[in-house]
Amino acid sequence: MATQRADHQQNPTVDEIPDIVISRLPVYLRTLRLLDSQGAEVTSSQELGELLGISSAQIRKDLSHFGEFGKQGTGYNVAFLCRQLEKILKVDCVWPVVLVGAGYLGHALASYNGFLNRGFRIVGVFDNDPTKVGTQIGDIEVKPTSALPEAVDRTRCQIAVIAVPAHSAQAVAEELIEAGIRSILCYAPLTLNMPPDVRVEYIDPVISFQHMTYYLDKGCID
Amino acid sequence: MATQRADHQQNPTVDEIPDIVISRLPVYLRTLRLLDSQGAEVTSSQELGELLGISSAQIRKDLSHFGEFGKQGTGYNVAFLCRQLEKILKVDCVWPVVLVGAGYLGHALASYNGFLNRGFRIVGVFDNDPTKVGTQIGDIEVKPTSALPEAVDRTRCQIAVIAVPAHSAQAVAEELIEAGIRSILCYAPLTLNMPPDVRVEYIDPVISFQHMTYYLDKGCID
Repeated sequence: MATQRADHQQNPTVDEIPDIVISRLPVYLRTLRLLDSQGAEVTSSQELGELLGISSAQIRKDLSHFGEFGKQGTGYNVAFLCRQLEKILKVDCVWPVVLVGAGYLGHALASYNGFLNRGFRIVGVFDNDPTKVGTQIGDIEVKPTSALPEAVDRTRCQIAVIAVPAHSAQAVAEELIEAGIRSILCYAPLTLNMPPDVRVEYIDPVISFQHMTYYLDKGCID
Repeated sequence: MATQRADHQQNPTVDEIPDIVISRLPVYLRTLRLLDSQGAEVTSSQELGELLGISSAQIRKDLSHFGEFGKQGTGYNVAFLCRQLEKILKVDCVWPVVLVGAGYLGHALASYNGFLNRGFRIVGVFDNDPTKVGTQIGDIEVKPTSALPEAVDRTRCQIAVIAVPAHSAQAVAEELIEAGIRSILCYAPLTLNMPPDVRVEYIDPVISFQHMTYYLDKGCID
């Protein structure tokens, strides 16, 4: 199975594991690390399932794509499974991330202390607002987006976060791709038009809210 | 189809439309409103599909759950489809939302001007940090969480956002449920243990990052 892991690390494009399975692994890892921090040495697909609201069969099936991580009856070794998931997701290390947008959200992200211990460090913050360029967020100095290519190249950065208003997000995304970014986390409320080989994930709280309201009894203030 | 909509608004629990379909409607609405703002009067499932990277067949199938919104060949009336999706998602009005956590993220959310025109208004911000209670975020005064029940009751609020650290998120979530909240958007990096009738959506950028890195060639800084 080590070979298997090596294979899909070298050839993610030919990987046949469904993306929906991959999307659940970070959630499993987050919960396993919580259990680990609480001193748990062993867990089970049943316990994980109850903590996550997912069936234990689903969890076993998802993990089985990557090999045999637990013995029937004895459960999973928490620390070992954490390390394995970190290897599979390639977060057994720290990835550089560039952030574009130094508004309130950019400040929140650049100041968040929960990235580093989960594999990520914001190495640069960029904004074209002259009132923001040169200001400090923590120990990072905000730079104009013209400085992006050099920063991306120097840090060999592949991941960017877009925290700019919707009207400038597409242009920023194109600058990022031009600079060599391969994956974008977009907080701007729109769908970016990107080349097929660029991966984009979106975070828009209103999309979550509007999903919720469908299931609620209507209750508006105006 | 009006009846159909009325039905599942009254009985969301017996609604048989797959949740994955519901989850895509807000994304369709967001794109349709963009087209509307650009002056487009008519669109097609093909155009929407290209803008969203979804197949046109998928879009037609999703919308067909709610009735017939376009005529074969003539496409969709953008403004009409916007209004229909807003009715289906119940965002043809403004929902009150309470926010717990007045840190950087809470400030970013409470200051965000993109909620109101999409159906949501943050009506209260709560935090138990004595250095934050009494401070203003925009025109909202931060209050202690002891003031939650009164605020939730007064505004008949059903939706809350949790923007507190992971270690206090579960306790906050329980206070919110106790106060009458039915749906929670959780920014804390954990999975909440909630009653089955409470809907929780999660936003954790690291989950998105770790999903991305699986597909990237390993490139770490340390």
